[in-house]
Amino acid sequence: MGYRFLKKLVKVDEAIALVPKKLKIELTTEEIDFDKSLGRVLAEDIISSFDLPPVNESAFEGYAVRGVDVLSASQYYPVRLKVIGDVKIGVGLTIEGTQGQAIKVVTGAALPNGFDTVVPVEYVRFSGDEIEVSKSFPIGDNVIHKGEDVKKGQKVIRKGKIIDPFDIAMLAHLKQTRVKVLEKLRIAIIPTGSELIEPYEIGDVYKTVNTNAYALSALCKLPWIEAHRLGVVQDDLEALTCAIRSSIEDHHALVLTGGTSVGESDLVPESVRRAGRVDLMIRGIGIQPGRPTGVAVLSGKPVFMLSGFPVACMVGFIALVRPLLYKMVDAMEPPRPIVRAILKSRVSSSLGVASYVRVKVRRKDGELIAEPVRVLGSSTISSLTDANGFLIVPLGSEGFDGGSEVEVLLYGPIQR
Amino acid sequence: MGYRFLKKLVKVDEAIALVPKKLKIELTTEEIDFDKSLGRVLAEDIISSFDLPPVNESAFEGYAVRGVDVLSASQYYPVRLKVIGDVKIGVGLTIEGTQGQAIKVVTGAALPNGFDTVVPVEYVRFSGDEIEVSKSFPIGDNVIHKGEDVKKGQKVIRKGKIIDPFDIAMLAHLKQTRVKVLEKLRIAIIPTGSELIEPYEIGDVYKTVNTNAYALSALCKLPWIEAHRLGVVQDDLEALTCAIRSSIEDHHALVLTGGTSVGESDLVPESVRRAGRVDLMIRGIGIQPGRPTGVAVLSGKPVFMLSGFPVACMVGFIALVRPLLYKMVDAMEPPRPIVRAILKSRVSSSLGVASYVRVKVRRKDGELIAEPVRVLGSSTISSLTDANGFLIVPLGSEGFDGGSEVEVLLYGPIQR
Repeated sequence: MGYRFLKKLVKVDEAIALVPKKLKIELTTEEIDFDKSLGRVLAEDIISSFDLPPVNESAFEGYAVRGVDVLSASQYYPVRLKVIGDVKIGVGLTIEGTQGQAIKVVTGAALPNGFDTVVPVEYVRFSGDEIEVSKSFPIGDNVIHKGEDVKKGQKVIRKGKIIDPFDIAMLAHLKQTRVKVLEKLRIAIIPTGSELIEPYEIGDVYKTVNTNAYALSALCKLPWIEAHRLGVVQDDLEALTCAIRSSIEDHHALVLTGGTSVGESDLVPESVRRAGRVDLMIRGIGIQPGRPTGVAVLSGKPVFMLSGFPVACMVGFIALVRPLLYKMVDAMEPPRPIVRAILKSRVSSSLGVASYVRVKVRRKDGELIAEPVRVLGSSTISSLTDANGFLIVPLGSEGFDGGSEVEVLLYGPIQR
Repeated sequence: MGYRFLKKLVKVDEAIALVPKKLKIELTTEEIDFDKSLGRVLAEDIISSFDLPPVNESAFEGYAVRGVDVLSASQYYPVRLKVIGDVKIGVGLTIEGTQGQAIKVVTGAALPNGFDTVVPVEYVRFSGDEIEVSKSFPIGDNVIHKGEDVKKGQKVIRKGKIIDPFDIAMLAHLKQTRVKVLEKLRIAIIPTGSELIEPYEIGDVYKTVNTNAYALSALCKLPWIEAHRLGVVQDDLEALTCAIRSSIEDHHALVLTGGTSVGESDLVPESVRRAGRVDLMIRGIGIQPGRPTGVAVLSGKPVFMLSGFPVACMVGFIALVRPLLYKMVDAMEPPRPIVRAILKSRVSSSLGVASYVRVKVRRKDGELIAEPVRVLGSSTISSLTDANGFLIVPLGSEGFDGGSEVEVLLYGPIQR
């Protein structure tokens, strides 16, 4: 009966567009020290409260001059100016430059009043306390003017940005030492299946090791997420319903793995239905591996149902859950490494599903070659660790021929 | 005098090749729980201590059969088999399959003895306790054989790998709950310059805010690195020498920022020389911004000297320091996001330096467009936060024309 369900697969892009329209995760905000904010979701636009630079600064090492004095300078008719001193970085001189004067400046030094142009050191000949300028410069040249980098009131970092090291530099520069970020997204990771044992447990060879909960925790290890790995729940409707109901209380989202394959045991979706008010239930996503992947909205919170098979589970997370989490909290997902490579041998895929084919990308004679990793079944984790990237065959394609140029989502280093 | 120095710029690739030949950072190893090892440097090859799967498993949902029984099956001459039961996942049945028999299996179920082939459920008609198989399958088809995923004794993850979520899955799968990793690389970040004030300090507009130390700490925020941000050191030979000498003791590497621009103040390289035995001193790297970047080997440890100008400092770190750190501890650097985009307007660069041009990559009509961010001077942090990628103009090129296809090292999200 269940197989009928899986035939009506929802396209992954459709699911990613649809779910956030139905549901946003409302996170509160908190104010933290800027130097603790790396990787958090910025919850406010950052507006500069002053001009940067705050004064006119020299863009080069050289001599600050009055621009009108050097307008006529040329190699044959150099202009001679008197050097009246020098400006160190971090110092503001109260002197005023007048006609025929120059002052030595380092890069970033503040120009004293009267001086509006900088002659870089390489265009200057120095003799005694005079310089000879042999080139004309437009007035204002080689000066970073007050507010030229950032204007007071200017928006410099957008709300929703995942704060990166350059943002940290900007926050320091703006002296914005406290910053408003979203509270951490609390996710419960719930492995299900009576066949599961923990990696440190002794069990017979027929038992399946709980790998998914550990891999999902690792995939969720981001500064803006706080993931809790819960214990294994047995294939039991009561136990599952209870685990879901209790964990949805103090988490923003649930990620379940196992028991979602429509067929034999349909326990997870049924338990979700019993656990509370369900507003949306998508079962079956057009990805391979990972077709049994599902999403539900339970009591106003997202519940992700991933396959129990490790590769399908991880592909489901990467293809569906991760982009949805960013979208549902209105955060901008950072870029992922994508390379173009020449496919070594043909890759086939079914129409109607986006296939995540594990490939090993190697550099050969300066060219990137993507070799598909042989797989059988979706549980072979070695296909992930042998490979270093996913070749995503779009749902409208039946595959790619050997020799084609393809795009690979890289996740591991390229080896020689 | 110093300018002569900077003219003999060392190519960044040469520096990255040369320094690790002169110097490896010897880190000790430690054994930690596998689920705490994400992002650490693996210090041993991971060898499987058993076959995976440990028994023959079904690759699909369907019926396990004796292959010889269905060799002749076809749509017109289907083969009928008696279903003797079913195998749940995680269970090992001690029965033995004989001629004319089949047993129901789920994906991943262990095949009982005698059954060597699986007929997927879609090729089967079920009636009473019998199935009709209407297609022939080679013997062994749709079975993941013992050891087919991973063989006992097989190397599954290589020493030097930065452990990723898929490796975590593999370690769980192999029940390798403890794992040997490199101790964390201890880096001291030392901002220098008498003009510096901290972001939270009140100072006049001429003071420069210490942004670099915070940005560098953020760039070093990786699970395998432990970075310590030290206080600002004044432009004073004594103070600098003392700070370098004391911090090199309990760190594996030093990163200094400021005071390296050859010219006025040559204090940092001089202080490094005074602090101990210097075996290598590279000053001036062929990158723009970041020409004053330097590397020294002091008392057998690397000392990186970065520009005091924020953008030059960060480019120096990204172009030189980061790749060197990975190489010097023999770790494999994870891939970085690179996209191809159409350049919107001409970008110029000097021959002999690799230019890190800040560009803003946008998606327009399905195409990526890279627009250079206007900059003057190397201190404009807004050029980094306005942009989302570096277009790296190689040292042999004078730039790219508008309309060319270029590669961009993306660091921020692509916005609509």
